[in-house]
Amino acid sequence: MTEITNILAERYATAALTAIWSPTGKVRLERELWLAVLKAQRELGLPIAAEDIAAYEAVIDRIDLEDIARRERQTRHDVKARLEAFCALAGRELLHQGMTSRDLTENVEQLQVRRSLAAIRVKGGATLAAFAAVAATQRDLPLTARTHNVPAQMTTAGKRWAQFGAELLRALRRLDALLADYPLRGLKGAVGTQMDELTLFAGDAERVAALEDAVRRHLGFAECLDCVGQVYPRSLDFEVVAALYQLGAAPASFARTLRLMAGQELASEGFAKGQVGSSAMPHKVNSRSCERIDGLHVILRGHVTMAAALAGDQWNEGDVSCSVVRRVVLTDSFLALDGLFETTLTVLGQMQVSPAALAAECARYAPFLATTTVLMEAVRRGVGRETAHEAIKTHAVAVAQGLREGTLTENDLLERLAREPRLALARDTLQALFAQAQRDTGRAGPQVDAFVQAADAWLTDCPAARAYQPGAIL
Amino acid sequence: MTEITNILAERYATAALTAIWSPTGKVRLERELWLAVLKAQRELGLPIAAEDIAAYEAVIDRIDLEDIARRERQTRHDVKARLEAFCALAGRELLHQGMTSRDLTENVEQLQVRRSLAAIRVKGGATLAAFAAVAATQRDLPLTARTHNVPAQMTTAGKRWAQFGAELLRALRRLDALLADYPLRGLKGAVGTQMDELTLFAGDAERVAALEDAVRRHLGFAECLDCVGQVYPRSLDFEVVAALYQLGAAPASFARTLRLMAGQELASEGFAKGQVGSSAMPHKVNSRSCERIDGLHVILRGHVTMAAALAGDQWNEGDVSCSVVRRVVLTDSFLALDGLFETTLTVLGQMQVSPAALAAECARYAPFLATTTVLMEAVRRGVGRETAHEAIKTHAVAVAQGLREGTLTENDLLERLAREPRLALARDTLQALFAQAQRDTGRAGPQVDAFVQAADAWLTDCPAARAYQPGAIL
Amino acid sequence: MTEITNILAERYATAALTAIWSPTGKVRLERELWLAVLKAQRELGLPIAAEDIAAYEAVIDRIDLEDIARRERQTRHDVKARLEAFCALAGRELLHQGMTSRDLTENVEQLQVRRSLAAIRVKGGATLAAFAAVAATQRDLPLTARTHNVPAQMTTAGKRWAQFGAELLRALRRLDALLADYPLRGLKGAVGTQMDELTLFAGDAERVAALEDAVRRHLGFAECLDCVGQVYPRSLDFEVVAALYQLGAAPASFARTLRLMAGQELASEGFAKGQVGSSAMPHKVNSRSCERIDGLHVILRGHVTMAAALAGDQWNEGDVSCSVVRRVVLTDSFLALDGLFETTLTVLGQMQVSPAALAAECARYAPFLATTTVLMEAVRRGVGRETAHEAIKTHAVAVAQGLREGTLTENDLLERLAREPRLALARDTLQALFAQAQRDTGRAGPQVDAFVQAADAWLTDCPAARAYQPGAIL
Amino acid sequence: MTEITNILAERYATAALTAIWSPTGKVRLERELWLAVLKAQRELGLPIAAEDIAAYEAVIDRIDLEDIARRERQTRHDVKARLEAFCALAGRELLHQGMTSRDLTENVEQLQVRRSLAAIRVKGGATLAAFAAVAATQRDLPLTARTHNVPAQMTTAGKRWAQFGAELLRALRRLDALLADYPLRGLKGAVGTQMDELTLFAGDAERVAALEDAVRRHLGFAECLDCVGQVYPRSLDFEVVAALYQLGAAPASFARTLRLMAGQELASEGFAKGQVGSSAMPHKVNSRSCERIDGLHVILRGHVTMAAALAGDQWNEGDVSCSVVRRVVLTDSFLALDGLFETTLTVLGQMQVSPAALAAECARYAPFLATTTVLMEAVRRGVGRETAHEAIKTHAVAVAQGLREGTLTENDLLERLAREPRLALARDTLQALFAQAQRDTGRAGPQVDAFVQAADAWLTDCPAARAYQPGAIL
Repeated sequence: MTEITNILAERYATAALTAIWSPTGKVRLERELWLAVLKAQRELGLPIAAEDIAAYEAVIDRIDLEDIARRERQTRHDVKARLEAFCALAGRELLHQGMTSRDLTENVEQLQVRRSLAAIRVKGGATLAAFAAVAATQRDLPLTARTHNVPAQMTTAGKRWAQFGAELLRALRRLDALLADYPLRGLKGAVGTQMDELTLFAGDAERVAALEDAVRRHLGFAECLDCVGQVYPRSLDFEVVAALYQLGAAPASFARTLRLMAGQELASEGFAKGQVGSSAMPHKVNSRSCERIDGLHVILRGHVTMAAALAGDQWNEGDVSCSVVRRVVLTDSFLALDGLFETTLTVLGQMQVSPAALAAECARYAPFLATTTVLMEAVRRGVGRETAHEAIKTHAVAVAQGLREGTLTENDLLERLAREPRLALARDTLQALFAQAQRDTGRAGPQVDAFVQAADAWLTDCPAARAYQPGAIL
Repeated sequence: MTEITNILAERYATAALTAIWSPTGKVRLERELWLAVLKAQRELGLPIAAEDIAAYEAVIDRIDLEDIARRERQTRHDVKARLEAFCALAGRELLHQGMTSRDLTENVEQLQVRRSLAAIRVKGGATLAAFAAVAATQRDLPLTARTHNVPAQMTTAGKRWAQFGAELLRALRRLDALLADYPLRGLKGAVGTQMDELTLFAGDAERVAALEDAVRRHLGFAECLDCVGQVYPRSLDFEVVAALYQLGAAPASFARTLRLMAGQELASEGFAKGQVGSSAMPHKVNSRSCERIDGLHVILRGHVTMAAALAGDQWNEGDVSCSVVRRVVLTDSFLALDGLFETTLTVLGQMQVSPAALAAECARYAPFLATTTVLMEAVRRGVGRETAHEAIKTHAVAVAQGLREGTLTENDLLERLAREPRLALARDTLQALFAQAQRDTGRAGPQVDAFVQAADAWLTDCPAARAYQPGAIL
Repeated sequence: MTEITNILAERYATAALTAIWSPTGKVRLERELWLAVLKAQRELGLPIAAEDIAAYEAVIDRIDLEDIARRERQTRHDVKARLEAFCALAGRELLHQGMTSRDLTENVEQLQVRRSLAAIRVKGGATLAAFAAVAATQRDLPLTARTHNVPAQMTTAGKRWAQFGAELLRALRRLDALLADYPLRGLKGAVGTQMDELTLFAGDAERVAALEDAVRRHLGFAECLDCVGQVYPRSLDFEVVAALYQLGAAPASFARTLRLMAGQELASEGFAKGQVGSSAMPHKVNSRSCERIDGLHVILRGHVTMAAALAGDQWNEGDVSCSVVRRVVLTDSFLALDGLFETTLTVLGQMQVSPAALAAECARYAPFLATTTVLMEAVRRGVGRETAHEAIKTHAVAVAQGLREGTLTENDLLERLAREPRLALARDTLQALFAQAQRDTGRAGPQVDAFVQAADAWLTDCPAARAYQPGAIL
Repeated sequence: MTEITNILAERYATAALTAIWSPTGKVRLERELWLAVLKAQRELGLPIAAEDIAAYEAVIDRIDLEDIARRERQTRHDVKARLEAFCALAGRELLHQGMTSRDLTENVEQLQVRRSLAAIRVKGGATLAAFAAVAATQRDLPLTARTHNVPAQMTTAGKRWAQFGAELLRALRRLDALLADYPLRGLKGAVGTQMDELTLFAGDAERVAALEDAVRRHLGFAECLDCVGQVYPRSLDFEVVAALYQLGAAPASFARTLRLMAGQELASEGFAKGQVGSSAMPHKVNSRSCERIDGLHVILRGHVTMAAALAGDQWNEGDVSCSVVRRVVLTDSFLALDGLFETTLTVLGQMQVSPAALAAECARYAPFLATTTVLMEAVRRGVGRETAHEAIKTHAVAVAQGLREGTLTENDLLERLAREPRLALARDTLQALFAQAQRDTGRAGPQVDAFVQAADAWLTDCPAARAYQPGAIL
């Protein structure tokens, strides 16, 4: 009755990430590392028989978490418990020679981090592709852009999505750089000096280096850190979690904007099959998934705080006051971001923008939106900028207020400006400007093209992202 | 292979808390609430038969999480899924009348919060009792107090523990106040106006109030909020999590101090039976549990960030962008603090202070510690404070430096001060002051008494705390 | 050219708070404390002449920050610098006897905190009064309540404001409790044992207690902490900052909601005289002040993180790694909240709700909003809840979709439901329900009354709050 | 009396950073940007006379903050106030054509960020050089490495400093990457579409692009963002602040470790001339500066929270709820890190490690430290790892406990192990191992060399860092 699952794993994340962080998955990765070390030690001349290795390999998949837990309750030492369990199965005591706990755990955790970064890259890339697709489709669909949440100027729907896509693209490039240079701690021993390995190899530094190199290659890392203590610096964890948070920012802003648009009836995140709005008001298209995206980003924000608290808090060569924190933060930050991307992909796939509503909104605000170009035109014809601004402001504010208060039934801004002596602009000039204003989305279209092109270029290096399809979400 | 449990529940928290937050436990609490509403509605005249209630009661414990999960995947609505599951078992469709999802979930979550606060109070109280016991035992054991982590003046070990106990006591009083006035949202309907309940009772506001009151009494709350929207204000969640964080602060400082003392060989957190230090260095008494306490406090710090992000972010009558966040933060903050207290209790029960090491330290620093009283004495005899300070400083700094650099083999500060004309203090006066300095712990003892007395007074209202014994920890 | 002012003090906070935290103000408070100690020491028999006290009193207002800064650069000790400056002016060396730096700084900072809490209480209370006034005025103005940011049910504008007011009221009660029991560290000496004071009074514990008591009364605190180290526990600072953050939550949610309403053209924060929207689009009523409220709350969130990092991080009897942090966080959190309240008061005073726009919105959504009551009515007449829900859902979703897509020109939900056999509700019954839905705001009105009454009761104890008028904001 | 300065600027940061963020400095940068735009517009054919430009240039340094503040109080618009002030001085109204406020502020702020990153790079590089120098000097000075804050194995003092230096080096490389690709928002207009500039240039997209390009070159950026709204994405600010936090992590861990070493009497941060420990205990070498380093890092942690709250919170094309937050966080995070580096440089320059104390510590722990090699040796000779471990553990724990409790007067571990049949190691073999243990620092020396070499390589590209000397700190 009292078992509690990891809610992020159960409800939001996918197997791509949960498989990396499950207890069973982690035990398996540890055993692989131990075996890689064992084989390398044999090759480097230690007295290890081929049969010994075979004995361990034969039982590598016999993972009994209950047995391990029992051993840990006895020893109060998690690595020792897992070591004993594996050795008992193989009937040997050959593993972990010259190693300390952190030689195992640090490297396995970094392997989990690195594989997770790679898996997240695919999800993020798929989201980038989805942004590009939606932006391209709606490249020229006029939309009233808003600043301070009120109508400002014309843009296009495609441009709106493209801005979030471009933000995501930058975060993905940051991720690429991190994946390229994320360094492994390596086999450094209890305090970082590699003393135990040196002893094991009777002082032969070359074989010590060769062993570490073999492990690094086994784990697929480009480089090892040269100079660490018991642990790798925790600012590296912060760097990872900060990169994850940055990846979630564009989807979070996108989701927030879609929630705003739903409130203005311009768009909705759509319904999945079988979904209802709420039990009491079934017609409502609630932005449940968008809210979830924003919520998952808040969770990541808590993880940033946790990871930040570990960076800069190293004592001497290291302590493990970070241990319980990293059990939570490394696992959960990846699961949260995985769920965030999965939900974003679903929303991008099913969301609905209403062209009719967009058009109505444009018509309503066009006269106001024209004021900027009217100002430009007046200035271009020699009117002082401040003078023109003052004249336009007076009329625009009056019309806006009249409409809000219901004293005006239609927008007569054009007429008022045509009568304004300070501007000296003819009625037909103004009419043309007003008509233009409703169509004029500046360089929104070409900007969308630039984004789509940049996204395509990035996706060329990540074909899995383009192919990825999200599963069903709750 | 990919199932991931909640690590806080699995490794650190106890059944007292996990039972409240487990999925099964929560479903059970919801069903109790639905039944409480159903019974009250029947008493208030709605057409509900006694057999209907019996039909629900008969199946209340048949909780099939798989069935509920399947229904949620179909409806994408968690409350609806749980409602359908219960109704299907009972063969009725009578629950949830006049209710909206939030009438269920908000109130059940607040019930979980309130019960958790009460359970945590016992754990925190037990920790208070343990601090008091240790402080009383070591009331007069001299200890070199440190500021800036270097020896400053004498105190007692008991006083050191008492200061953390006193900090905890304040946090417990804060918890008491919160438990006393933590208010229930109540049955307020979809947007807070109680419109659906009014409709159900044909506009009879008195019966609406009576129904809410019945539910409030069922849940054991002293009061309902008068004026809410869809949800209760999320600053209330922040208030709860902030109180939890405050509760963890004293244990965290205690644990940090014990880690420091271990490094100075003055004390250790002790070994549990069967525990080893590390696989490579078995003699080491590592402060694993103390590090865990500090780590769990860091996790709570992340929860503070998450809860803070929800407070002040309400849209209109409410949204549920907080939903996924609260699934994590409410559950995990209680589990983390539960584990923190459990670990602190274990440490307080097994820690070892070394009187021999404390005595050696006092002997070493006594001459320096006497300088403060020397200064006082000189001032009392009419020497200018700044003059006396300068004289003492010159000699003390010289001796300290000589000892650090090995140029002095013994501390000759007394001799130097006796020769100092600016102080004009006789050798035997100084000798008496130096002897006194080593014994003089000021009002440390009476301060310990004051704390123990205050703790006892508090514990009188919480007998369960005094009786509580921690279980075995990992 | 490189001088940088505290931006919160310069742009947002008021003199009520900046006077407490200015360097000059702090020096003055310190001198008062030194003098209070000096006078008490004289009364308790120390050899201090009346002329000595007069000599200090004569120069108490001669505060030369440049001189103090010069002394600090020399001694690298801020308290010593300020002590020397005061003594040099008075031509005496009598201050600070039996005191350590923290006896001065901790107590003065707590005095600043306490006075700031009291000043903030007035600002928060004024904001409460403003919420109550607006809520009462708009008690019965119908408004379409929203959940998930989309229309849900009817409420009133007054109720919307009242929910934020009620949230603020809870935070103010929390502040009241904090003000009532916020304890002073007192004169505890270098490590908390009061040893130096004991020496000064030749071991007379009663005079030591009397001295501390005199200082406590001078500072206006109800109680002293019994058992501290060098410093008071930093979880007390966290408690303060958390209370400040909670106070800002209701205004932040209010501001966010007003920003949403501005985007839906239902309300605006209004213009102050002389204000323009933006240079390019003068008609725009941008929610600048509301955005600022939300921004100031984010700043406070950073302060919560800073204060949380200090709590639980005490080393032994104390260190001052918290020193620089508290210089920032104590000052700035009060200044930020002061600016937040000041801005909120301005917005509450000038905001404009458009009754015409509210009415249009209600008319548009009424048919959908009626579905809840239709469901209730059907259930009341014996239709199964799930059956009725399914029937209503089908039609409501179809109509909503048709309207969004422009295939329906008017809302014909009533007709569709009248033809639905599963509901068996007559057309005129439905018509009555639909008409009712548009008017039916449930218990919104009485809930507003309850809030206004509670606010009034609180304000009775804080007349300054009711009288407070905000100044002009930037 | 109530003026409050920015405490970080006043007490901790240096002119290198404060000059960039002072109000006067910012106004100057804005005027330069306006002029750069004006000149480019003239070159691109707009009717702007050379005399107009000269008129502005003549008054560019006449910055009257009071006048600007007065104008802002009137218009409640900061950019407009500064624009009017400059134009009034020049007697022209030609600036800001085709620009919106954000075209000015976003770009100027990014310029401040970029220049600050470059300035911080020098400070960080100087700190790297200082770490390398200290590490090289103490390359072979034996030190007892600690894990869990208790002695573990031998290392060298140089290696301890090198690990922090290596952590800093990674953060500097991250900074390099950020400086290289930090993109400018550019002149994008009110909602990002460049519509106003297009209007100004009568639809000529090429001249619009040329204008933006001229501004980008003027500001010294490598590239412009293609696709933004009103503002550049705030995740870019988070990226910057996260990079700053990462830069502070290694100094923070270094400072924490030095505070620990001071408590163990192994080292101290040293005294500056004229500095005293504390007024009461002048001999104390308090780690004031190290505590400050850690405190400044905590402040940065609060800034991370603030910046994180802005990322992912964009509404539509942008709002300015971030405005007040960014005024605080951008300025203060750079100032805090500047002060952090400045303090670290001072500490690295004056800290004192005591070789005598290090040697005494090594002698004391050597027997325990030898156990790891004893274990290795036994395993190498065919004893089962677990068997050997158990044997060694029994004796080591007994000896450690005896020493702590005073029942043993000397460490007789060697004798005990020599008598242990399970190990079967001869006494002289053990003696050699024990002697070796005290000398054996593994690959600590070569690891230091590797770090120093890597630091030197980095510093080759940053000669200013190598030359930098910190000023005096408070």
